This record gives sequence, C-alpha cells and structure tokens, in this order.
Amino acid sequence: MSSLLVVSAHAGDFVWRAAGAIALATSRGQRAKVLCLSFGERGESAKAWREGKTLEEIKSIRRGEAESAAAVLGADIEFLDAGDYPLRESDELVDRIVRIYREVNPSVVLTHPLADPYNGDHPAAARMALQARVLAQAIGYDAPGEPLGAPPVFFFEPHQPEQCDFKPNVLLDITAVFETKRKAMECLPAQQHMWDYYTDLAKRRGVQVKRNAGPNLGLPHNTMGEAYVRLYPQVTGELA
Amino acid sequence: MSSLLVVSAHAGDFVWRAAGAIALATSRGQRAKVLCLSFGERGESAKAWREGKTLEEIKSIRRGEAESAAAVLGADIEFLDAGDYPLRESDELVDRIVRIYREVNPSVVLTHPLADPYNGDHPAAARMALQARVLAQAIGYDAPGEPLGAPPVFFFEPHQPEQCDFKPNVLLDITAVFETKRKAMECLPAQQHMWDYYTDLAKRRGVQVKRNAGPNLGLPHNTMGEAYVRLYPQVTGELA
Amino acid sequence: MSSLLVVSAHAGDFVWRAAGAIALATSRGQRAKVLCLSFGERGESAKAWREGKTLEEIKSIRRGEAESAAAVLGADIEFLDAGDYPLRESDELVDRIVRIYREVNPSVVLTHPLADPYNGDHPAAARMALQARVLAQAIGYDAPGEPLGAPPVFFFEPHQPEQCDFKPNVLLDITAVFETKRKAMECLPAQQHMWDYYTDLAKRRGVQVKRNAGPNLGLPHNTMGEAYVRLYPQVTGELA
Amino acid sequence: MSSLLVVSAHAGDFVWRAAGAIALATSRGQRAKVLCLSFGERGESAKAWREGKTLEEIKSIRRGEAESAAAVLGADIEFLDAGDYPLRESDELVDRIVRIYREVNPSVVLTHPLADPYNGDHPAAARMALQARVLAQAIGYDAPGEPLGAPPVFFFEPHQPEQCDFKPNVLLDITAVFETKRKAMECLPAQQHMWDYYTDLAKRRGVQVKRNAGPNLGLPHNTMGEAYVRLYPQVTGELA
Amino acid sequence: MSSLLVVSAHAGDFVWRAAGAIALATSRGQRAKVLCLSFGERGESAKAWREGKTLEEIKSIRRGEAESAAAVLGADIEFLDAGDYPLRESDELVDRIVRIYREVNPSVVLTHPLADPYNGDHPAAARMALQARVLAQAIGYDAPGEPLGAPPVFFFEPHQPEQCDFKPNVLLDITAVFETKRKAMECLPAQQHMWDYYTDLAKRRGVQVKRNAGPNLGLPHNTMGEAYVRLYPQVTGELA
Amino acid sequence: MSSLLVVSAHAGDFVWRAAGAIALATSRGQRAKVLCLSFGERGESAKAWREGKTLEEIKSIRRGEAESAAAVLGADIEFLDAGDYPLRESDELVDRIVRIYREVNPSVVLTHPLADPYNGDHPAAARMALQARVLAQAIGYDAPGEPLGAPPVFFFEPHQPEQCDFKPNVLLDITAVFETKRKAMECLPAQQHMWDYYTDLAKRRGVQVKRNAGPNLGLPHNTMGEAYVRLYPQVTGELA
Repeated sequence: MSSLLVVSAHAGDFVWRAAGAIALATSRGQRAKVLCLSFGERGESAKAWREGKTLEEIKSIRRGEAESAAAVLGADIEFLDAGDYPLRESDELVDRIVRIYREVNPSVVLTHPLADPYNGDHPAAARMALQARVLAQAIGYDAPGEPLGAPPVFFFEPHQPEQCDFKPNVLLDITAVFETKRKAMECLPAQQHMWDYYTDLAKRRGVQVKRNAGPNLGLPHNTMGEAYVRLYPQVTGELA
Repeated sequence: MSSLLVVSAHAGDFVWRAAGAIALATSRGQRAKVLCLSFGERGESAKAWREGKTLEEIKSIRRGEAESAAAVLGADIEFLDAGDYPLRESDELVDRIVRIYREVNPSVVLTHPLADPYNGDHPAAARMALQARVLAQAIGYDAPGEPLGAPPVFFFEPHQPEQCDFKPNVLLDITAVFETKRKAMECLPAQQHMWDYYTDLAKRRGVQVKRNAGPNLGLPHNTMGEAYVRLYPQVTGELA
Repeated sequence: MSSLLVVSAHAGDFVWRAAGAIALATSRGQRAKVLCLSFGERGESAKAWREGKTLEEIKSIRRGEAESAAAVLGADIEFLDAGDYPLRESDELVDRIVRIYREVNPSVVLTHPLADPYNGDHPAAARMALQARVLAQAIGYDAPGEPLGAPPVFFFEPHQPEQCDFKPNVLLDITAVFETKRKAMECLPAQQHMWDYYTDLAKRRGVQVKRNAGPNLGLPHNTMGEAYVRLYPQVTGELA
Repeated sequence: MSSLLVVSAHAGDFVWRAAGAIALATSRGQRAKVLCLSFGERGESAKAWREGKTLEEIKSIRRGEAESAAAVLGADIEFLDAGDYPLRESDELVDRIVRIYREVNPSVVLTHPLADPYNGDHPAAARMALQARVLAQAIGYDAPGEPLGAPPVFFFEPHQPEQCDFKPNVLLDITAVFETKRKAMECLPAQQHMWDYYTDLAKRRGVQVKRNAGPNLGLPHNTMGEAYVRLYPQVTGELA
Repeated sequence: MSSLLVVSAHAGDFVWRAAGAIALATSRGQRAKVLCLSFGERGESAKAWREGKTLEEIKSIRRGEAESAAAVLGADIEFLDAGDYPLRESDELVDRIVRIYREVNPSVVLTHPLADPYNGDHPAAARMALQARVLAQAIGYDAPGEPLGAPPVFFFEPHQPEQCDFKPNVLLDITAVFETKRKAMECLPAQQHMWDYYTDLAKRRGVQVKRNAGPNLGLPHNTMGEAYVRLYPQVTGELA
Repeated sequence: MSSLLVVSAHAGDFVWRAAGAIALATSRGQRAKVLCLSFGERGESAKAWREGKTLEEIKSIRRGEAESAAAVLGADIEFLDAGDYPLRESDELVDRIVRIYREVNPSVVLTHPLADPYNGDHPAAARMALQARVLAQAIGYDAPGEPLGAPPVFFFEPHQPEQCDFKPNVLLDITAVFETKRKAMECLPAQQHMWDYYTDLAKRRGVQVKRNAGPNLGLPHNTMGEAYVRLYPQVTGELA
C-alpha cells in the first residue's frame, strides 16, 4: 500500500506548506507520516519567547499544536527533538531518519527545498532527508527492514519561493481538501496571521492550476493549489 | 478525445526521438498527428546529395520514408515544405501552425528543445511551435475553430542532450511499443547507422526508467525508454 | 528633472504590474510616461470577443480604460497600435521607441522581463525596449534629440513569476500610494477578478518588504509592495 | 546609528576587497568593524614561510599589518584566530560570530561570496557569516543582546570573479576615498605586487561605474570603484 | 593548412579582444582572416560624430584604422558594410558569411559571446557567425566550395564580462606577441584611452594564466593573457 | 615527469568512468595512481550482500577486483578504507589526501563531479579531492613534500549525467586503448551487466568525438570516447 512521508525541519512547516497533499493522501486511504526533526522552538516561536515562556514550555506547546494539526489531516506524527536554530546535521540523526524510511517504506517523500537564504534549518533538513533516502536504499546499510525503493521526492514551497530558486514543476489541485487544510492551520493559534496568508497563497496557486490545466478542464472558480518541485525525473507510461 | 501533436523541423526527427510516445498514444486509441515543417532536404540528407540526387528527388524520398514511418506508428502526417538549413521563422508559417492546432486540438504537444548549438532549425521549429500554441489559445486570433486549451508541451531528446541543456524530467517507458519504434526506424534506410544508435539510447533511457522507478516496481530487464523535458508545470490531483 | 518611462506590450500591463512605481514617481513630482505598444486587443480581451465586439471597438475600449488608469496615476500615455498576438518586432517599431527615449529622456525605465512562456508579446516588448535604449544612447543613431544616458532598467512582475525566471532583486514599498493603484485597477472593469488578485499580490510582496527590511524599521502591518528585477548593476555611493 | 560589519576569512581580505566601502562608511561617521576569522597564516603567507618564519611570528606579523590597515580606514578590528587552510566550520565559531552580530548590530554586512574554487576558506567564512546572521535574528537563540534586524549582505569581489560566479549587481563609487584605500593597502608590504593589481582593478570597476551611471552624471575621468553582489532583495521606496 | 577566422560586429572589436590570438596564429605561419560585418560607424564612433564628420568619412576612417591593425597582425581583413546600431540579421548576410567559411575553411573560429546587454550588435554578429558555420557544414546548402568541417568556436572577451555571463574556460598566453598587439591597438588613435585599458586587462588575464598554470611552469612575471569561452566540447587525445 | 591522480569514492568507479584516460596516460609512459577512498562495500555491492557475504569478505573481494583492474591499466592503486554509505568527510581524511598529492605531485587530477542526487558519496569524494588539492598548494600546510602546483582537474562521467548537471566540455578519444578498458571492466565480474553498458556509452561518446572533431579529421567509424568536465580554465598557448 502506498504511503507518504513528510520530513520537516520544524513542527509547523508541514501544515502551511503540505497540508493539502497530506489530506489528499489520507482521503485516498493512504498512510501519511509527518516527521518533525525539531519543534521550531528557538527559530519559529518568537511570540512565546516574548511572553517569557521557557524552552520546555515552548516545545510542549509546539508539539501539541502539531499533533492537533496532524490529527485533523489524518496523519501520524513523530518528533525527533533534534534542536533548531541551528538544526545540526549528524550521522546519528541521519541514521534515525534511515530507520524511519525503512519502517514507513514511503511511496512518496515530501521535504523542504535545498536552498533557503532566510532559514538554514530548512536546507539542512532537506539534505538529511535526501541522504537518508539514498542510504536506506542500500542493502548493505546496517538498519532493520528491507532496502527502500526509489520513492519520488517533492520539495514543498518555501516562504519566499523566488529567493530559494523554487520553480514549481508540479501544481497540486487541493480544492477538495482545502477546508481540511484550513482547519489544520487553525490548530496553530500563535501564527493566526498565517491562516489568511496561506489561504491567499492557495488561491494564487489555484489560479495557476487553472491556467496550466487549460480552460477546457472546467476547473471551478475557487480552485485551490499547492506548488511543488519534483527532484527526480517522473517515470510514466503516458505523456500527459 | 485526447490527441497528440508532434511538431518537427525535419522529416525524420519524430522517428528517432518520439516514435515511442507516438506508438503508445495510438496504441491507446488516441489520434496522433506529425507535422513536419520541412523535409530536412538540405541539412539531413548528406548521403543523397553525395549520390547526386536533385533537391526535388531528395524531398520526395524523405517524404516517402516519413510517410511509411508514420503509417507504422499509426499516425497522420503533414508536410509544410517550409525549407530547411535554414528553417526560416515567419508570421505565415506560424499562422499555418496555429490553424493546425485549432484543427487537431491536441491534448499533448511534442517538439524540439529550445537550444541546439549543432542545428539551428530545431530551436526555430520549437519557437514557432510554442508561439503558435499561445496564439491558438486567444479567441481574438483570427483563425478558424475554437480557442485552444493549455495542452502540456514536452521536448523530445536532441542528439547531444547535455550540449542542448536537455535535462530530462520525464522518462517514458516505451517497452511495450519498442518493436514498433524499431520498425518505424527501419523505414529510413539511408540512416541505417541510426537504427542501432537509437536502440542503444532506448536501452540507456530504459535503465534510467528502472533506476528512477525503483526496483520494487518489477520492471523487466529489457525496459526501453524515451526521455522528455516537460516545459510547463504538471497539473495533478496526486503527487506520485 | 528625473522621469519614468514604462514600455508595455498591452494596454493593461502597466496597471497591474507597475502602477505603484508610477504613482510613487508622480507623487514625487516626476514625469511618468506610459508607452503601450499595442492595446492587447487580441490576446487579452477574451471577454469582449465573446461578447461579439469588433476589433476596432475592442481597441477603443482598451484605450479608454488605459487612459483613465493613467490619469488616475498622473501619467502621460501613448499608444503605438503595433498589433498584438503576435506583437511583431521590426526596425520601424524600434525606431519609434528610440525617438520616445530621446524625447522623454527617462531617468528610469520599466518594462517586461525577457522570458514568459505564457505570452510571447511580453518578451518581444522587452527586447525592443532594451534595444531601443541602447540605440538611443548612440550619437550616431539618426534620430532627433540628444543621446540618451544610461537609465537603469527594471523588469516588472509577470503573472507566473517563477515560470518566467523572475527572481526579484528590488522590493518597492508602495504602501503610500496603494489606494491610488487600486483606483487605477478599478478603471479596468472587464478584468474585475484581477483587482483582488493584484491586491493580494501587493500584500504578499509587502510581507517580503517587511521581512527583508527587518523588524527594526517599524514598517506598518499593512505594508504593500511591488517586485522588480534590476537588469544592470546599481551604481551607488553607499552600500545600504 | 548605522554600522558596518565585515566578516573576512583571513587578515588581509578586507583591505584588497572592501577598503573602499569601509572608508566610505567611516567618512560618513558610521562605525565599521572588521572581523578576521583567521590570520591567513598558512594559506596566504607564502613569502613568510619561505623566509623560515614560525607560525606564531607569521600570525603576529599578519595581525600587525591588519591592525594598521584598519586604523588607516578608521575601523575596529577583531581576530578570532580560528585557523586557516582549512578554516573549520563549527558551532562554537558560529556562536562567537552570532554574539558579535548582537553586539555590533550592523546595518550592513560584507563578506566573501559563496563560491571560490581556488580557496575553500572564503566560502566557509561566508557560510558562517550568513548562518550566524540568521541565528542572531532569533529571539530564542541563547546569546546576549537584542535580536538582530535584517541587515543587507553584500559579497565583496574574489580574486577571479568569473570563476566564482561573481556577477556584480552593485558598483560602488569609491573615488572620494581611494587614496585612503591605497594607504591601507600599503600597510601590507609583503604583498606589494597587490597594490598595483588592486589599483588597476579599482580603475576597471570605476570605468564600469561610469558606464552604468551614464555620461550625464558627469563622473570624473579617474572614477574608482568596487564591485559587490547584493544577496537579498533591495528594499526601497524609490526605483533609481 | 590550419587557419583562423574572426567574425566581428564592428571594425575595432578584433583588435581589443583577439589581437593576441591572431598574432599567435600568424606567428605560427597560419592564415588569419578578420571579417568585419560593419565599421561600427554609428555605435562606436562617438568622437568622430561629435567632431561633425559625415557617415562616409567615419566609415572610411574606421576602415583605414582596421586595415592598419590587421596589417600589423599579419591578417587579411574584409568588410561587409552591413550597417551597425543596429546590425540587422538577414538571410543575405548569413549567406555571405557562409561563403566566406567555405572559402577560408577555417580550423578555428573566433566571435563575440551570445549575450551583451550593453550592445545588441555583438550577439547579433555571434548568432550569424554560428548559424553560418552550421549551414556551411551541409553539403545541401547551395554555396560554392566543400562542406565545412567542425572548427571549434571561441568567444572573445566583452567589455563587461560578468554582465555578459562570460565565464572564461580558456586562458591564452599572449606574452610572446603582446608587443604586436599593442602596436595594433595604437593603430586606433581615436580610442587612445583603450590602449592602457586593454594593456591592464592583458596583465590581469596574465595573472590568471599564471595562477591556473601553476607556479611550477615558471611563467614570467609579466605574462600577458586573453580570455576565451570555448563553445563546443574540446576533442582531445590527452587530458592536460 | 607528468602523472595522473584519480580520486574515487568507491573501488569500481575509476574503471567504468576513467579507465580510458588512465590507459592513455600509462601508454604514454606516465605514472597513474588510483586512490579509492572506500571499497564501495555497502552501497555498491548489493549482489554480495544478497549472497550473505560479510562486510570483510566484501571489502576483500572489491579490493581484489580493483587491484586487478588497476594492473590491467598499468596504474598504482591505494585504498584508504574510509567507509562508504555514507563516505564521511573529515579533516583527517582530507589530510591523508593532501599527503598523497604531495607525494604523487600529479600533473592531472580526475575525480567525481560535485553533484549527484543518486549517490552522496560521489560529491563527498569530489569535495575532499578539491579541498585537499588547494591545501596541498600552500607552503604553510603542515605535510611532507613540496607545495603542489595547479594541476587541472577533470570530473569523470556520472551514471545519469544530465541529472548531475554534467555538461561535458572535453571529449577524450580512447579508441587506441579501448580494448584495455574492456579488459579492466572484465575484472569486475559481479557487475557484468555494466560491461556492455559502458561499452555502449563509449560508442556514444565516440560518436560525439567524431561530431565535434569534424569529418575532416578522418576519425574511424568505431571511435570510442570518454566525457569529462574541466573545472578550471584551460591554459594554453594556442586556440585549437
């Protein structure tokens, strides 16, 4: 059975950037698993720090919010608590990710793009997600489970796409699950200004879905979208 | 009903580079139409020129070969006889292509990539194919028929892919129709050395089909492939 | 006295994409001139065509709308009526643009970016705007007026920026004039769906203005922006 | 009050590549601070090694020269003595740089470009300068002082610019302070051949300053320049 | 016998940018031919225009200077007088270049790079030089002489290399002929400020010759160089 | 005397990708040394793992095969046994490579390209090979021997060249030694399917050798080739 693995640097990333893809997968009956390498406790929790919360309190809040959002989306979620700002790359952390690949055996992988001049944790997460995927493919790599196949990898959209050299080559129609994505976003009350921001972005990507699909497809006026970059060539039996 | 339009600079290009995609389309019952802007009479018929044939003889030979190959593939074929070496871009030629878009109403378009430092006719054909596609979309463009939708465009593989900045993002599994492609190639006896060359290439791209699909898919040892570059973002309801 | 020249393929482009920059210029007392190479009568007037209007009616409507929008922005406007879809590049048209450069003597030039796979008229306009700028600099070029200096050139934002390789390197704060931009947009009633689309885009670019300026600058919550690409190196006496 | 921070891999880099920008800043009354991660004791002191000097002697000489040059430019200077050839990236070193960001609170940052196939220390310094800047922005990062804003970053010119993919997008007019730059260069007697080399480069970049500013600006014949690459988009209220 | 063909937009280009390569070729006994598509009479003769000279006078002056420089270099020179600013691309002009390829049968071709945002004539000349080279290779192209082989193409250095995406991949040691190059430059008295400019550039490229050759080669202190970009892959029997 | 150093991530890489260059070097009497950072025991020995062999057995087998292939090619070989999947970058490993540079004093260096989304060990090996080369050039780097010169670096061909942004700029004619390369490949019986794969690739690159050399050179029908990317500019006294 096919399944989706999302490798995310911080606890909130998967909601803003990939909740549509996750909800589509679970609505088709696929398993979806979100792997948060950190909670985003230092770099993406400015409000909580200004309120004087402690590190442990912030991690706990972020965990709770992300678990709620994952539940809305019907996804499993796991936290590696590897620390953020900076998220440190290490053999140990990569090895933990390899083991999760072997356990989940994903048919599709989502992660951050490889460039982000505004946030070094995002590319660090992506590099580890990609390295672990290759290691998990090798029968000689010492970890439980069967060698991984070659699941396609998609990068989800960063906050300032052009500055991250993010040129979408896949536009995903998420109209059918957008309400679910909105509910997942609303699980993160500390970032309420993001709810509308990412709703607007979904509209904008939806316009591009319609534009690139062509008027003949009869997509509805309120088509909503998410943008992705496919890393490896698509393998197909039909050009379409 | 969906259909395939192939816009090719010379009479032989569609055989070496896209016969697999064409045969797959017709084997699914789709219409396929090949549009040859020229016969390749000056630039790709060295053998015939060395044998002392006249321009008209060469054009006639090339036409016959291409018609035979198209017949093998189950495709319609049309020749615009616009001249090659150089293939001249003009409003008139673009207008003729617009009218064919409106008539065929293709769901998929194949053409040359936009860069080729070894053959200026190839990018010229691609530029006209792309310009005509955009013009055909406009209701205000004065040509018969309904405005075109937004059919995806795929560039087929040039002779020296790296020098043409051709980085495949779609690998097409043509195993099921490779024998048909081979038969189509054999309709071009003047270029017999190309038969094996493009058979080898299909093997090579087939290895990449398997590599990128992953071992779990159980593709056969003799998987054959063709490589393409998708120009516009893929629109989809599922990441896969 | 400094002045702004905007070279636009169609009658509406300058409103959606550059009205903020124009309004800022005129609010500082600079002259702004908009040059529309065509009315966008074929390629960007689908609604009017569907309503059965004639070519001349459509051109007249588009002219009127653009004149109203220019008036709102305090800008001069001139139409070369060179035809669209396709906008044809010619020596004659370039020469007309050269003469306008010599007459306006702009200190800043705005035009389309050089790549747009969705609309060939946009890059055609940009190529002519750039070629004419270089020709106008030459004392030996036979046209009235003094040779042009070296006004910086900025590309304004295309509809699908990533697909046009548009990586903004200048973010313009248009908060002070956004209401004027909105009024100018409302001069184009046939494209009412664009009013909100480009208001959302201005918000989105405004978020990036704030993000790249830094929180210390105290920019307001509702900062609005436009994105540009500077073609030539910035010349300055201070890094800032 | 605005201030300038220069993060340099070795002790001499700031002189050849950024002395003009530093002198301009201090001449305007801004604070300028130079941070040398190493002395360049192994990789850029060939002459001293050939003379048989010890490591400590070389470091001492390099420190003295750099302090003299900084004094000429009116800049503070600090050495982290992290070692060169290779300059090793570490969390500890990045943390020290974060603390300096928080202390200096720069309004502008200068460092090396991210690619240099001739010298791995330069990109290593740049990566750390950029990572530390992002970390210093986070309130949750555990270091004294207020979170940093978003100071723009400029890469200064490497020795072989084209090979480092260095495409200048800012040309700085340093004519007014060139004599000061020359005096700073003359504080480094071991590299006397560089004095003329970088004087010639300043002339060459000065020609480009004039070319890109346009003849109308009336820049003097002996305009001198430095070239920079701006990393993040420029935020501005006026296109110019 | 091997020979060199230089295709140049204006009468002076070959002197500043390629005189070293030409002098090296003729000093080895090779034939060198310079083809000037125009005299640069409008775009590169500002001084003469300011002095009130007529078009014909300017063309005559430029021709004389270029002939003198070619004579110093031992090269043949031919002028096609196709006009500049703009240099117009046409089938007729390309055909004339094809015939020269067939007559000269060059073993090496030099021309401008394909991008130059400061001067549209340069890329226009390069496009025609490249197109003509491909056409001349076709036996079916109707022009006298034998089909051309596949001579390598080198782009010579533009005035602002980084802005033209000129990344040199060949550094030519012209020390042995630099005095000849200087004499050729001195045949162009109207551009005396260029003599030193291009002498400085030759020194700068000479430093890079030494740096990339390595100290072990014992190149002299005053090594002089020219930079080139090789367009097609180098074919060789030895990596070196 | 000139010599060749090949830095390879795994034990087999040098055979498939660079055996032609090695055999050409030794056939000219040059010294060739192959440095294998690992045996490829985990990532490239799937067959042995499936047969139940132990890690030590696999390393031993791989060592034996590589030694045989090196012997056929007339090359020295050394194994650093640094482990693969992942090949870990470390100061210690780089230092060992520096010492080998100082000992071999190569006139040419071959290694992997810097990008490979299918195998992270390859770019890791390349980064270390390049870093060590620069360190070995510094007299101040503490290792025995004389400072290295500036040997050119060539990247050999990866398995999926386009996906690794591998655009060959050097095509090496290996016809004279292809039989030797074939014999070297046959020393690796576990990868028998690669023998034909890389023979086909050599034919394909041979076609490009002929195409880029031109028909006039009279290269034989069965010309065989290897493709390379030269990293630093070529230094030469003659354009050819």
